[in-house]
Amino acid sequence: MADPLAQARQNLAIANRIVSVEGIIDAFGHVSMRHPTKPDRYLISRSRSPEVVEASDIYEYTLDSQPVTPLPEGIRGYGELVIHGEIYKARPDVNAVAHHHGMAFLPFCNSGEELVPLYHMGAQIGEKVPFWDSRDEFGDTNLLVLRPEEGASLARALGPYWLVLMRRHGATVAGKNLTELVFRSIYSYRNAELQLATRSLGHPLSPLTPGEAKLAWQRNLEPRPQARAWEYWSVRLKKAGEYPAAPKPTAKAAAARRGGKTRAVSRKRRR
Amino acid sequence: MADPLAQARQNLAIANRIVSVEGIIDAFGHVSMRHPTKPDRYLISRSRSPEVVEASDIYEYTLDSQPVTPLPEGIRGYGELVIHGEIYKARPDVNAVAHHHGMAFLPFCNSGEELVPLYHMGAQIGEKVPFWDSRDEFGDTNLLVLRPEEGASLARALGPYWLVLMRRHGATVAGKNLTELVFRSIYSYRNAELQLATRSLGHPLSPLTPGEAKLAWQRNLEPRPQARAWEYWSVRLKKAGEYPAAPKPTAKAAAARRGGKTRAVSRKRRR
Amino acid sequence: MADPLAQARQNLAIANRIVSVEGIIDAFGHVSMRHPTKPDRYLISRSRSPEVVEASDIYEYTLDSQPVTPLPEGIRGYGELVIHGEIYKARPDVNAVAHHHGMAFLPFCNSGEELVPLYHMGAQIGEKVPFWDSRDEFGDTNLLVLRPEEGASLARALGPYWLVLMRRHGATVAGKNLTELVFRSIYSYRNAELQLATRSLGHPLSPLTPGEAKLAWQRNLEPRPQARAWEYWSVRLKKAGEYPAAPKPTAKAAAARRGGKTRAVSRKRRR
Amino acid sequence: MADPLAQARQNLAIANRIVSVEGIIDAFGHVSMRHPTKPDRYLISRSRSPEVVEASDIYEYTLDSQPVTPLPEGIRGYGELVIHGEIYKARPDVNAVAHHHGMAFLPFCNSGEELVPLYHMGAQIGEKVPFWDSRDEFGDTNLLVLRPEEGASLARALGPYWLVLMRRHGATVAGKNLTELVFRSIYSYRNAELQLATRSLGHPLSPLTPGEAKLAWQRNLEPRPQARAWEYWSVRLKKAGEYPAAPKPTAKAAAARRGGKTRAVSRKRRR
Repeated sequence: MADPLAQARQNLAIANRIVSVEGIIDAFGHVSMRHPTKPDRYLISRSRSPEVVEASDIYEYTLDSQPVTPLPEGIRGYGELVIHGEIYKARPDVNAVAHHHGMAFLPFCNSGEELVPLYHMGAQIGEKVPFWDSRDEFGDTNLLVLRPEEGASLARALGPYWLVLMRRHGATVAGKNLTELVFRSIYSYRNAELQLATRSLGHPLSPLTPGEAKLAWQRNLEPRPQARAWEYWSVRLKKAGEYPAAPKPTAKAAAARRGGKTRAVSRKRRR
Repeated sequence: MADPLAQARQNLAIANRIVSVEGIIDAFGHVSMRHPTKPDRYLISRSRSPEVVEASDIYEYTLDSQPVTPLPEGIRGYGELVIHGEIYKARPDVNAVAHHHGMAFLPFCNSGEELVPLYHMGAQIGEKVPFWDSRDEFGDTNLLVLRPEEGASLARALGPYWLVLMRRHGATVAGKNLTELVFRSIYSYRNAELQLATRSLGHPLSPLTPGEAKLAWQRNLEPRPQARAWEYWSVRLKKAGEYPAAPKPTAKAAAARRGGKTRAVSRKRRR
Repeated sequence: MADPLAQARQNLAIANRIVSVEGIIDAFGHVSMRHPTKPDRYLISRSRSPEVVEASDIYEYTLDSQPVTPLPEGIRGYGELVIHGEIYKARPDVNAVAHHHGMAFLPFCNSGEELVPLYHMGAQIGEKVPFWDSRDEFGDTNLLVLRPEEGASLARALGPYWLVLMRRHGATVAGKNLTELVFRSIYSYRNAELQLATRSLGHPLSPLTPGEAKLAWQRNLEPRPQARAWEYWSVRLKKAGEYPAAPKPTAKAAAARRGGKTRAVSRKRRR
Repeated sequence: MADPLAQARQNLAIANRIVSVEGIIDAFGHVSMRHPTKPDRYLISRSRSPEVVEASDIYEYTLDSQPVTPLPEGIRGYGELVIHGEIYKARPDVNAVAHHHGMAFLPFCNSGEELVPLYHMGAQIGEKVPFWDSRDEFGDTNLLVLRPEEGASLARALGPYWLVLMRRHGATVAGKNLTELVFRSIYSYRNAELQLATRSLGHPLSPLTPGEAKLAWQRNLEPRPQARAWEYWSVRLKKAGEYPAAPKPTAKAAAARRGGKTRAVSRKRRR
C-alpha cells in the first residue's frame, strides 16, 4: 500500500479497533489523525462506534472541522469534531487525538481527583494531567464539546500536555503519532485503574518522581516497546476477528498500477 | 418485513439479546414493549432468559397481564408480568419496559443510597430515581412483584420518572421506545458503576446540575446517538453469534404475499 | 438415555461445566451427586478440573469415600473426597455437593465476616451460613479436608444448613438435587459479590427479614425458575462450546438394546 | 519430541501463553527457563509479548545475558534480560523466572503494603515477599532493570524467597521448574486480588500461620495438583485457540531420525 493516505486510513481504522477491543472506548468516543501529507487537514471516521470503523468510513476535515468535500448523502460526521480540529490547530506537535469516556477515568473526571503516575507505564499520562470544566466558561451545557469555542477552550486546558480530563464527561488524549496515541490511551487507562485500586487500600499514593517520570516516558516511546505493543494489539485484534479488512485499492491507485486510467467500474468497489 | 407486529417481535428479541450480551441481565429479568398498533396490549417473551429469546417466543398480553390467546400447552409466561402491564396502564407515554437484577444497581437497591447523574451519559437515569420497597405496603413477601396490586404500587412509585430501584430486589426501567429503553438500561448501569467507583475514592459526588442533566438527556435521545448506539450493539450481537435469526414469515403473512390462503403446512415452520 | 446412572453422569458433567463457565470454580474445586438409585454411594469425577470433566471421568464411591471398584491404572481421585462422603453420610436430604475457592467468597472466608441475604436471589444462601475453621480441632494443617475426621467435622459445622464457609480456604455448598446445587452455587456467589460492593459504599447492610428470606427461598426453588435457569446455563455452555458430548452407550446398555450381549469391541469406545 | 531442548522451547512457549491467557501478563513482561541440560544458560523469547511467543522465538543466553550465538538480523532481545540472568546466577535452585506488571500486584508495588498468604493457594507466594526499590541504590531511573548491577541488586532483594515486588514497577516470580513458576504466578496473583478485596471490607487480615503456610506450600507442589492445574491451563489455551503449534523438527533432529544428515532444505522450514 504505497499510497500514504490509503495507508493512513487503514492504520486509523486499526487504531479505532484496538482501543475498542482493549476496552477503552465503547459505543461513543472517536479517534483521529492528522493527514499524513497535508498538516492542515485531519482524518476521522463518519459517526460510527470505533469498534466498527473501516478505512472506507474515514473522511478528511479541515482544521475548522469542515469536511474537505461534502459528506455523501445520508452520511453524518461526529458531533464533537471540534475536539480534534481545535487541538490540531493549537498543537502542531500533535498528530493523533482520541476522545473517550473510559470507566476508569470517570471517577477522576467526576471527583476532580488528580491523576498521578504510579508505575513506569503510567508515565505516559505526561508531566501533568489538567482538568477542563465546561461550567467554567459555558455554564450549563449538555457537556459535549460541540462549538468551536468549546473545542478551543478544551485545547487551551490541554495546554502543552498530552491528556486532559473533562469534568463529568471523559478524557481527551493526544499523541505525536497514532502508535503513541494508542499506547498512551491504554497505559493512561491502566494507571487510572491502578490509582483507583491503590486508593482503596487506604495508603498514600507513591508517585514517580519527576525525574523517573521523564526517563520512563522516554523509554516507553522508544521504537522497541512501541513496536512490541503494536504487534501485541494487532495480533489480539486478529484473534478476536476484529482486524479491518485491507481496503480495496482505490480506482486511482489501481489505475496507476495498471498504467491505465480510472474506470467507472471502480466505483462499485467502494463501500 | 412489512408486518409491524412481526417487526416488533424481532426487534424485541434483539433488545432482549442486547441487554444480555452487554451484561445488564442474566438468567432472570425480562424486556417488553407495547404492541405497535394496539396500545392496550403489550408484547413479551414466554418465561425464558432474555439471552435466548427469539421472535417466536413473544406473545401478546392485555394490560391486565392476561394472554390475548391462551398460551400453548406447556408454555408458561413470566411470573412478574404485572410489572409491565401496570406500568403501561399508568403511563401512556411508556412503550417499553425492562426489569432486571443488574449487579451494579443492587448495592443501591440494598442500601437505599440515591443514584445521581455523574456524567453526561448518566443523565439517562432521569430527573430522579425513586425507590420502591415491597415492605411498605405488603410486609414480608418473596420480594417478587406478582399480584396486580403489587405492580400498581410499583408503577405509583415510578411516578413520572424512568427508572425505579426496588429495595433488595432490582430495577425497572422504562422508555418511550425500545431503543431508548436499551440505551437507558445500559447507560444507567454505567452510571451506577461510576457511582460505586467514585464513592470508593472517598470524595463527595459531583452530579450534573439539573440544567446539565436536562440538556444531556435531550442530546442523548437525538436520532444520531440513538442510531449509533443501536448499530454498535447490533454489530456486537452479530459478532458474538447472538443475533436472533429473522423469523420465518407466518402462514398468514406468507399467504398474503402469495395472494392465496393459509395452508396447514405452514404450521410446521413455526417453532 | 433411559439408564438413570448414565443420565446422572452426563448431568453431573454438565453441572461441573456450568459452575466453571459461570466463573465460580477454577482449576480446583469439585462437584458430586448422590447415586441416583443407590443412596449409599456418590458419583464424582476423577481428579480433573471441573471445566474439563466428561461423563466418562465419573466414578462411584461409597460414603466412606472409597471407590466402589478400584480406579483404573493411572487414574487418581480427588484428594478431598471426604468433604462429599461425610456430608452425604450426615445429611440424607443432601443429594449434591460442590466445593470451591470462588474469589467472591474468599474475603468472607478470610475475615470471618458473616454472609447475609441481600436480595431475593441471595436467599439461596439459606437461613444461616456457618463457618468452619480447621484450626479449631486440627491446629496447623495444609488447610485441605483430607481425613475422614476432617470431613466429619466440616459436616458438623454445616449442620442443617446449605452453605459453609471454610476459614482461609473456600466454600462447600449442598443441594437437594443437582439443579438446586448449581443454582445455589451461582446465586450465593452473586450475593457475596453484592455484599462486597454494598459494604464498599459504607452503608449498613439491609438484609432480607427471616420471613422474606424463607418466602424467596421457596419461590426460587419452584420448578419454573429452576428450569429457566438451567436452560440459560445450558445454552451458554453450548454457545461457549463447552457442552459435554453425550456419552457413547456403554457396552451393557447397547447390548440390552440390541437384545444381544456385551462384546469385547465395546471397550475401545470408552475413553 | 525426544530432543530436550526442543521440548523445553515448546514448553516455554506454552508457559508464556498460559500466563497471558490467564490474565497475569499483558504486552510487556517475559518468562524464561534455565537450559534443560546446560545450567549456565537460559532460554527466553526474543522481544515479543508473551501472548504471541512461539518455540521458534526462543533463544539461548549465557547467565551474563549475552546471546550464545548472535541474534539474527532484525531480531532483538528483551531489554530487561538481566532480571533473568542475575537470578539464575544467584539462585542455582531457580530454574524458571517470570517478570510482569500484573494489575493486582501493582497497588502493593506502589504503596509498599506487604503481601501475606490469605488462603491455602496463596501459600505459593512463599514465606515472605520482599520489596525492591530501584531508588535505594540507583536513584532516579526509568524504573527498568537494564544493567547487570540492577539485576544483581534485584536478585539480592529476592534473597532466598520466590517472589519480589518491585516498587512502582511490577513483580518477579521464580520457580524450581516451569510448572511451579506458572502455578506461583497465577496463585500469587489470586492471593493479591484476595488481599485487595479483603482489605476493602475493613477487617484485619487473617493470614495463614507459618505452619499452615509451609504445609499448604508443600501440598500445592505435589505432582497431582501441579498436573491437574497444568492440564486445566493447557485445555483452556487450546479452547482459546492459543496453544502454540508443535514446532517442526529441526534439521538435526529430523536427520537423526532419518539416520541421515542435515540438508540445506531444512532451513526453509524454520521461521
